Amino acid sequence: MSAFPIEDIVASLQRVRHDWRESQQRSQAGGERELPSRQVVAELVEALTGALFPMRLGPTDLRQESENFYVAHTLDAALHLLHTQATLELRHELRHTAFDAAAVSADAMARARDFATQLPAIRALLDTDVMAAYHGDPAARSVDEVLLCYPGVTAMIHHRIAHPLYKMGLTLLARIVAERAHAQTGIDIHPGATIGPGFFMDHGTGIVIGETAVIGQRVRLYQAVTLGAKRFPTDAEGNLQKGLPRHPVVEDDVVIYAGATILGRVTIGKGATIGGNVWITDDVPAGASVTQASLQKAKGLRPGDC
Amino acid sequence: MSAFPIEDIVASLQRVRHDWRESQQRSQAGGERELPSRQVVAELVEALTGALFPMRLGPTDLRQESENFYVAHTLDAALHLLHTQATLELRHELRHTAFDAAAVSADAMARARDFATQLPAIRALLDTDVMAAYHGDPAARSVDEVLLCYPGVTAMIHHRIAHPLYKMGLTLLARIVAERAHAQTGIDIHPGATIGPGFFMDHGTGIVIGETAVIGQRVRLYQAVTLGAKRFPTDAEGNLQKGLPRHPVVEDDVVIYAGATILGRVTIGKGATIGGNVWITDDVPAGASVTQASLQKAKGLRPGDC
Amino acid sequence: MSAFPIEDIVASLQRVRHDWRESQQRSQAGGERELPSRQVVAELVEALTGALFPMRLGPTDLRQESENFYVAHTLDAALHLLHTQATLELRHELRHTAFDAAAVSADAMARARDFATQLPAIRALLDTDVMAAYHGDPAARSVDEVLLCYPGVTAMIHHRIAHPLYKMGLTLLARIVAERAHAQTGIDIHPGATIGPGFFMDHGTGIVIGETAVIGQRVRLYQAVTLGAKRFPTDAEGNLQKGLPRHPVVEDDVVIYAGATILGRVTIGKGATIGGNVWITDDVPAGASVTQASLQKAKGLRPGDC
Amino acid sequence: MSAFPIEDIVASLQRVRHDWRESQQRSQAGGERELPSRQVVAELVEALTGALFPMRLGPTDLRQESENFYVAHTLDAALHLLHTQATLELRHELRHTAFDAAAVSADAMARARDFATQLPAIRALLDTDVMAAYHGDPAARSVDEVLLCYPGVTAMIHHRIAHPLYKMGLTLLARIVAERAHAQTGIDIHPGATIGPGFFMDHGTGIVIGETAVIGQRVRLYQAVTLGAKRFPTDAEGNLQKGLPRHPVVEDDVVIYAGATILGRVTIGKGATIGGNVWITDDVPAGASVTQASLQKAKGLRPGDC
Amino acid sequence: MSAFPIEDIVASLQRVRHDWRESQQRSQAGGERELPSRQVVAELVEALTGALFPMRLGPTDLRQESENFYVAHTLDAALHLLHTQATLELRHELRHTAFDAAAVSADAMARARDFATQLPAIRALLDTDVMAAYHGDPAARSVDEVLLCYPGVTAMIHHRIAHPLYKMGLTLLARIVAERAHAQTGIDIHPGATIGPGFFMDHGTGIVIGETAVIGQRVRLYQAVTLGAKRFPTDAEGNLQKGLPRHPVVEDDVVIYAGATILGRVTIGKGATIGGNVWITDDVPAGASVTQASLQKAKGLRPGDC
Amino acid sequence: MSAFPIEDIVASLQRVRHDWRESQQRSQAGGERELPSRQVVAELVEALTGALFPMRLGPTDLRQESENFYVAHTLDAALHLLHTQATLELRHELRHTAFDAAAVSADAMARARDFATQLPAIRALLDTDVMAAYHGDPAARSVDEVLLCYPGVTAMIHHRIAHPLYKMGLTLLARIVAERAHAQTGIDIHPGATIGPGFFMDHGTGIVIGETAVIGQRVRLYQAVTLGAKRFPTDAEGNLQKGLPRHPVVEDDVVIYAGATILGRVTIGKGATIGGNVWITDDVPAGASVTQASLQKAKGLRPGDC
Repeated sequence: MSAFPIEDIVASLQRVRHDWRESQQRSQAGGERELPSRQVVAELVEALTGALFPMRLGPTDLRQESENFYVAHTLDAALHLLHTQATLELRHELRHTAFDAAAVSADAMARARDFATQLPAIRALLDTDVMAAYHGDPAARSVDEVLLCYPGVTAMIHHRIAHPLYKMGLTLLARIVAERAHAQTGIDIHPGATIGPGFFMDHGTGIVIGETAVIGQRVRLYQAVTLGAKRFPTDAEGNLQKGLPRHPVVEDDVVIYAGATILGRVTIGKGATIGGNVWITDDVPAGASVTQASLQKAKGLRPGDC
Repeated sequence: MSAFPIEDIVASLQRVRHDWRESQQRSQAGGERELPSRQVVAELVEALTGALFPMRLGPTDLRQESENFYVAHTLDAALHLLHTQATLELRHELRHTAFDAAAVSADAMARARDFATQLPAIRALLDTDVMAAYHGDPAARSVDEVLLCYPGVTAMIHHRIAHPLYKMGLTLLARIVAERAHAQTGIDIHPGATIGPGFFMDHGTGIVIGETAVIGQRVRLYQAVTLGAKRFPTDAEGNLQKGLPRHPVVEDDVVIYAGATILGRVTIGKGATIGGNVWITDDVPAGASVTQASLQKAKGLRPGDC
Repeated sequence: MSAFPIEDIVASLQRVRHDWRESQQRSQAGGERELPSRQVVAELVEALTGALFPMRLGPTDLRQESENFYVAHTLDAALHLLHTQATLELRHELRHTAFDAAAVSADAMARARDFATQLPAIRALLDTDVMAAYHGDPAARSVDEVLLCYPGVTAMIHHRIAHPLYKMGLTLLARIVAERAHAQTGIDIHPGATIGPGFFMDHGTGIVIGETAVIGQRVRLYQAVTLGAKRFPTDAEGNLQKGLPRHPVVEDDVVIYAGATILGRVTIGKGATIGGNVWITDDVPAGASVTQASLQKAKGLRPGDC
Repeated sequence: MSAFPIEDIVASLQRVRHDWRESQQRSQAGGERELPSRQVVAELVEALTGALFPMRLGPTDLRQESENFYVAHTLDAALHLLHTQATLELRHELRHTAFDAAAVSADAMARARDFATQLPAIRALLDTDVMAAYHGDPAARSVDEVLLCYPGVTAMIHHRIAHPLYKMGLTLLARIVAERAHAQTGIDIHPGATIGPGFFMDHGTGIVIGETAVIGQRVRLYQAVTLGAKRFPTDAEGNLQKGLPRHPVVEDDVVIYAGATILGRVTIGKGATIGGNVWITDDVPAGASVTQASLQKAKGLRPGDC
Repeated sequence: MSAFPIEDIVASLQRVRHDWRESQQRSQAGGERELPSRQVVAELVEALTGALFPMRLGPTDLRQESENFYVAHTLDAALHLLHTQATLELRHELRHTAFDAAAVSADAMARARDFATQLPAIRALLDTDVMAAYHGDPAARSVDEVLLCYPGVTAMIHHRIAHPLYKMGLTLLARIVAERAHAQTGIDIHPGATIGPGFFMDHGTGIVIGETAVIGQRVRLYQAVTLGAKRFPTDAEGNLQKGLPRHPVVEDDVVIYAGATILGRVTIGKGATIGGNVWITDDVPAGASVTQASLQKAKGLRPGDC
Repeated sequence: MSAFPIEDIVASLQRVRHDWRESQQRSQAGGERELPSRQVVAELVEALTGALFPMRLGPTDLRQESENFYVAHTLDAALHLLHTQATLELRHELRHTAFDAAAVSADAMARARDFATQLPAIRALLDTDVMAAYHGDPAARSVDEVLLCYPGVTAMIHHRIAHPLYKMGLTLLARIVAERAHAQTGIDIHPGATIGPGFFMDHGTGIVIGETAVIGQRVRLYQAVTLGAKRFPTDAEGNLQKGLPRHPVVEDDVVIYAGATILGRVTIGKGATIGGNVWITDDVPAGASVTQASLQKAKGLRPGDC
């Protein structure tokens, strides 16, 4: 006799799961896991990170002359993991249809292969982000300190992995990768966001960047900046229109200080500077410098009006 | 001869511990650990999470037809862990009294058993939170994405475990669970807060919800919202009165946008909408829509006055 | 034939690494890891935390009468780790010079030994922080709850380890320690910041404290407070002057509420109270109480003007 | 440049593997592992051992009232492992034919299910072996000591698992299980051997029991006893005839002392006693007592003649 | 629906366990593990081995100047494990009586403490065994090779730990330790055997040494030597008399070559040499040299007669 | 106060270690580990085994098309381990001299490189052993069963790694490898033994093969065969002459049955058959068939005379 009424609780939990599955029209028939696994995706990201930066973020005892062996083996294993998880995502998407398992697996393989070939470009992009952080923060003592310590760089390693996954339709995997960065850094970048080279986020905690945001080259953001949506676009009948652009466009060389909130499909022009804590819902011309004071003066509006 | 003066440092550290224990009137006599362990509580939460959502958050290789075996075994082990940790907490609370060890253990067991029977209801509540997130975020592609990826849901899994522990007097365990969510998601919900079904926090980072907050059904919060206390209530002699209601009541169907701060035992009426970054210390009527602009107009006050 | 063009990707990745190393004037010749490792530093912090608080944050099954054995062994191992990592940092710093490996190792050892002797003082300081949290938060039920649960205390354990490392020139190690706290708590304290005893951060998420900040005794901060720099000081030719004081001085017994932003080398006088969300770029006299309202009244300025 | 000519060695190793595969007519085309894994089989045996004797050989912290949860979960996982490994074995056997993968998997499942239903009988048999050891060794202090300590019992746990696998045609899995016992105990029992209840091997090291041996009830063997084959039976053309009986039949209640060697399809009659180090290639009548001396007297032969 | 009839098998296994417990008059009521654990005892032996030979069999990265810290911590942890396991053994022994749990625990602690104080003498004894192996095997190149590689030394480390446990009545623990050596080395020494300093077993596989054997100083044994019992002594009524001396006495400086079998309470006199494969059941005078040939000549007997 | 007098025991153990080190003229001054580590050598062997047989003894989830990546990475890591351990062995050997650390490391590297280039030949040799086992045992069902299950093959994998190490003077490493096989299989092959291709040991337990034994092609041995030394050769003054041939030469195609003992530098001629349990100390001509009976007849000697 167990100290706990385990059988009863198990039966009740089963009933709740049953109801959930019924409401979701899921199979009650059993079978293998149908969803990607957070744990496996975490392993995947760790492996890719090591393959991208073997001597700095790879195993402690790696030697530079052995890099390629490590990279090849790790990459190969990681890409097979990616194939498996991508297959799970694609099957899950098609779960209400009669799909051809072999075709789905081949499709997942094609996407994994496509992703694989982008890795050198991803590394090159990340090198520009590291340089941007090094030059952007006067307190940075070396590019290596930046790579090892800056949460903004950690977040970008995740984003530059997640974004291609998102673009090739593996949105669930992309999201799991993005949320791993969010949990580690407090920086919440939707994997759909388009971000140019040389991107730097200082401190970072609380930054939110939305799905359709477009960010140019050499942009710099401070903590708690939001690039969000004002509202969801609707069609004539008032239905939500997913996928339409609804987040800001931030052009090259823009700097946005801590706590600024920019909402909607507005454009922050090339080289503009946005002051701390301002609330912006309109375009800002190139080269402009917007502060709470300037904003109020220019518009006769109080901060935060919307 | 060690390279370090280890013996000296050990002796100095011992003296500091000695002073601390003396100042805290703790036993200097030795004995076993007297406090719950963060590590063990983390294991406990992991196990409960797996038992609540076996096919999505349980072990990667679990099969649906084997769920009940996994759930029963995991639950049984988890509940014994809970019994052990609850015993430690109760003994710690009674450490200045002459307690009856067997009675304390039996008491801890009764609480663990009580907690166990609430698990099916916890799962059902969490299902409503998942549905709320799915319907509340137009970008959500499936309920499974919500469960796997949304930090708000991760925070609620912890809260819906922590809250019953809090209510049965295991406040230290409840707090350790809550801080685990805080560390992972940046969302800080006091385990004492009462939260109705269908609760959704988008993005989440920076949300703070206080101990005596009461939140109705289908409420939605965005990042960096604070439901805090204005000040601690004091009695006639100015002594702090713990336990008195000091955080907001948020009624059904309220939406609170990012950065809003609501302080004190005020009531946000059913269906109200609170705009981004507003600062509220008074009741808001049902159905009202409060923005910084409206607030200033209505009150002739500037935002942030208090 | 692998499913992936691994050899090609490996070669491309090698080319990107080659370009990076060339641009950074790094050796292409191979050899061992040249940088401290985040993983090893994490182990180091874990070990020091256990050695500082053996019965509360050490191994679950430790007994009080065995503390010294555990502390001695753990400390000894941790200090050898520190020696190794410090050697890596010092060599990395000197990598463009012809250094004497033995001298560098001896130098690292001297610093590790110096750090070691500060540990009892670190523990004593942390005890004051724990007491401050206990007294500062009416909801705290015991000093042990504070140590186990409060993210502010977790952040201070890291800071009080990182700060001496920073002061002895191990800035990279110090930074890795600090970023570990940042990732876990959302609290971002630069290891250079000077912080007096009895420091308490409530909730904590989003707090940012800059490199040259100086904080007195018994100071209390709430979430999302920023003690930042207004701008970097430049010399006559406009070159950045690193190392000059550029962050606030916060005197004893100051309280700063959530979301306040204090920028530049200003002084917040003894006993002052800074209200939520205010934006301060000037000195505040001792004992003053600054709110958004008072600030606007005093200056005829709107909040956020700068 | 690696310190080792890794690429050359890898290429040479590949050539050797290529030659081997060619000589074995194996696919050079790639693909997944084709063979059961020793590691996985080891896990399987560990799991079955725990499920058979949960409170004595299961996890250290199991409680008796939780046995069934542990047993159910462990068994379920183990049987799925068995299904996987059995599928690998069956596919490997059919690798030169065009097999139907689904049919093979179903066949493996049927065998795993058949094995599963035999487990209670296996446990009951093992209980008789434990009792036999307890009664057979005057030095044994308890049945639990016997189960925990006696290598003969460890070997029988493996054999009573391996034998049914062998009988249902999973000879490779059966063999891997048997060799695990051999490695741990120095006792080498072919999984094909038929062994009745109440079997006891004292000390055990060096015991060898052949594939077609048949052992009755309550038989006792000491270390270094061999029940071997004299020669392989051949047909008229001198071809080996596999599967024909070629090892001894040992009837009920026989005792065989250390170092005795019994070769060929001879019968040791009920209740006979075989002395240490004797060499037997002929039948021994029931109840007889054979020593080296008696043997030589009876036959006019010296020990070891054959 | 599981692929396997798990519930049925679990129920059947439960019935078999129930029958076993009934036949053994064991509690069916549940509760914690009642027996020492092989795994925990294995940990214990590992820890003691490291504490006895820290720089050679301890952790790879230990430094000589840190030995004492490692030894103190490891020993302390090991002795607490010993206390726990000894308590389990003593309770198990008393399980049919109404014992006083506190007294049993104190008794176990006294034995653990007694064992602890013998450790330096154990190390000193083992040093003589290492020297004996070094001098006894012309192929040995260093004392360190002997300690790291010789299975005979591994077996003696276990025996010199197991024997004091046996002598203080912890026979089950002693036996588990001895069987661990048996499994690793194929050398089967009963923990009751008394063995003097400077003992050397070459190769070792198949050596069996019985419970009441007494071995002097500087004795050397080769593989497959048996020091066994001829038969169990019985009293007038034919009952087995446990504990009576029934294994050989081997005096100082004796050498026994491979495969020799010596049975019963006979004495092999000081300095005698016993040839390979001889079978001895009588005393051998001091200084004698016994071979199969000499034996047969002297007795007119063939080898192996008994 | 610890429950155990740990400080006293630690001090006593230190004294014993001090005495030992003094007697061995070892440094008391401290420093790093001076000896190879059994654990690291075990890792090394595991890695080499995987690199030699990737699809059968490598990781469970390896795919054939990824073999080379796995092999390259694993080999590279293994060879660096070998370099480290070889350096330790060489330094240990030279510990009483003033050696040049860099030269020793370079020497170790040269040996590791030499070993590396032999790996393809080692694999090819092992393939002949596998074929020999497959053809030699009528019960073998496939070459894969042989590789996965036969202890004789496991022992040869170790020996074919250990022998080149021995030949290049890394005798301690070689010995540690050999003893690992001994512990796992009960087969004790000195790493110095020279063994030709196609070697097969059936069952294996108890086989002993001495340092200077020379074994030809296609030789077959059964369990408990000894190829030992009769006595150590001495020079005119009676000093042991190490390194002189003192173990048997076994020519091509010889078969030796279970328990046979062959001692001294005798030659067993090509194609000879040695029966079970015979004791041989003289040459056996090519093609001869020796049994106990034949031996006694031919020599007028009883078995075991020596």
